[in-house]
Amino acid sequence: MLNNDFYSSENHGAFEVFDLGDFQLERGGSLPDCKLAYSTHGKLNEAKDNAILFPIMFSGTSGSLAHYVGEGNALDPSRYFIVFPNQLGNGLSSSPHNTPAPHGMSAFPALDIADDVRAQHRLMTEHFGVSELQLVLGWSMGAQQTYEWAARYPAMVRRAAPIAGTARCTPHDALYVDTFCEALKSDPAWNGGEYTGANDVQTGLRRLARVFALMGTCTEFYKQEAWRRIDIQSFDDLMAGFWEKWFLPMDPNALLCMADKWKNGDVGALAGGDLKQALSRITAKTCVIAFSEDMFVPLKDCRDEQEMIPGSQLEVLDSLWGHFTTLGLFEEDFKRINEILANLLAN
Amino acid sequence: MLNNDFYSSENHGAFEVFDLGDFQLERGGSLPDCKLAYSTHGKLNEAKDNAILFPIMFSGTSGSLAHYVGEGNALDPSRYFIVFPNQLGNGLSSSPHNTPAPHGMSAFPALDIADDVRAQHRLMTEHFGVSELQLVLGWSMGAQQTYEWAARYPAMVRRAAPIAGTARCTPHDALYVDTFCEALKSDPAWNGGEYTGANDVQTGLRRLARVFALMGTCTEFYKQEAWRRIDIQSFDDLMAGFWEKWFLPMDPNALLCMADKWKNGDVGALAGGDLKQALSRITAKTCVIAFSEDMFVPLKDCRDEQEMIPGSQLEVLDSLWGHFTTLGLFEEDFKRINEILANLLAN
Repeated sequence: MLNNDFYSSENHGAFEVFDLGDFQLERGGSLPDCKLAYSTHGKLNEAKDNAILFPIMFSGTSGSLAHYVGEGNALDPSRYFIVFPNQLGNGLSSSPHNTPAPHGMSAFPALDIADDVRAQHRLMTEHFGVSELQLVLGWSMGAQQTYEWAARYPAMVRRAAPIAGTARCTPHDALYVDTFCEALKSDPAWNGGEYTGANDVQTGLRRLARVFALMGTCTEFYKQEAWRRIDIQSFDDLMAGFWEKWFLPMDPNALLCMADKWKNGDVGALAGGDLKQALSRITAKTCVIAFSEDMFVPLKDCRDEQEMIPGSQLEVLDSLWGHFTTLGLFEEDFKRINEILANLLAN
Repeated sequence: MLNNDFYSSENHGAFEVFDLGDFQLERGGSLPDCKLAYSTHGKLNEAKDNAILFPIMFSGTSGSLAHYVGEGNALDPSRYFIVFPNQLGNGLSSSPHNTPAPHGMSAFPALDIADDVRAQHRLMTEHFGVSELQLVLGWSMGAQQTYEWAARYPAMVRRAAPIAGTARCTPHDALYVDTFCEALKSDPAWNGGEYTGANDVQTGLRRLARVFALMGTCTEFYKQEAWRRIDIQSFDDLMAGFWEKWFLPMDPNALLCMADKWKNGDVGALAGGDLKQALSRITAKTCVIAFSEDMFVPLKDCRDEQEMIPGSQLEVLDSLWGHFTTLGLFEEDFKRINEILANLLAN
């Protein structure tokens, strides 16, 4: 175990913890005393039929996209009970750095997207007594979880909004994951996952951040210096004050744990490897949101999967933020995504 | 100096060497006893008006694209005198590993695209007595040199064909260069450029190769397993037998020297920083060739610059090979590029 002050409510907002006990894992084995951290907004109504689940992206936590929740927004806490589950292994839930030996650090078990979704299912059913979700939505790895939810528990998911993510990780996307993992692990301080200080692997984290900078937005984002619109003054400030600032406080093993889930994401496993068959099980009213400038979850990949989902629709945003459009750092992006979600919830 | 058997005529075809003497450099200083390696095909005619110059890409040598030369091809050696100049610093010309102290290895001076072009200009004028080039063409960094040629020596260049390269390196492209350089330098064996064996930095070169794998083609190349068309049997074979095989024998400092030129490429320097002004000087009949799936020299960047060149045209290829379409590994790509060059030479 390792002390890492970054993973606190001061940095990520208030959160609670659901105890999963000895949690059986998809790839075999179990994680003893497994804990799922989550945050909630609004109140569950008496009928328990106003819940929305918002699984989170790679490197994100329950606080990362909470700005989508607000009175008058699609995710209106005066109307809905909105739950942000943290990924297992993301630093707030049971994770390499906070799990005691013999399961911590480099010995933390490999997880799958399906582990997250099964854990979240237990939270929603056992803890909250919810049997129907008005909406499951998520971005990137959150979209992977959204697809898994809609295909694994079709009767429970009324609506689904996977944003810039895939039901099955593509070979190129897996190569992208390998590239940023290799960048992180290239730092000798990583030491096979057995570093001794929370901030030992800064060089590796900086390298990882640069790979995200390379693929996270798009070429025109840089050419047009679109970062000036969020009050960043120079390219170097963008690198240090945005990309590196995001990743440097994080736990390397947590990132590698999530990356491994990302790379191996495949909803097709629910149907013996047949992705089309697995996605055809979805009964949720599904709106896939994709970004035309996304470099590692390209529009085409999103469209290919959307077309496998009965009665689904596709919405495309053209922001220069590329994959990172979901952050909503351009007001028009936030408004458009909020509008799409509002339309989905209105039907 | 370092012995590196890779940089031999056995591996790169026969080449000759032009002695530049004490060669003054764009960024200041000079490189004593500077040598420019080159290969030729066909014969210079008596009028000395049948020369074609084909500067070479990053990590390439005079042998890399020689398959474009052939009887009946656009680059027909029975008609044209075709010269492939090696880049300075590419391993065959004066380079970090073959330059004696105090200018070798990590002390090798920083070069610019303009240094290459001025060196090539001396080769063509002083050595061959050529005052007119029927065509200058090149891919990627070869395109950078092509733009520099056409704008620096407009009266000498009758036709120009920059292929998937820019006159001014874009910020995103520079970030790409930084990313693969950092991947290479992340190997402790690189040792600030002062490694002692030619094969010491294999881990770094492998990491660099993976960054090229990530951006070199396109996402659909991997999804459709387009590599099967060139008799590669698996993703792992593609990584090891194509990308790594290409880069592993190379000299790390040579790659870093070329990368630095790439990143700083800017034809606008000819007009006090005004790229449009510099490109407007071009009188060559110019055909810009771009690849719709190119991830780091996007079609849009090529079109933006093409539109600054008077009377120029743009040809676009849609191959899944993305940036690497120029290799011509798919027969239709080779045929199409050959056809475009033939049309250009016919007018």
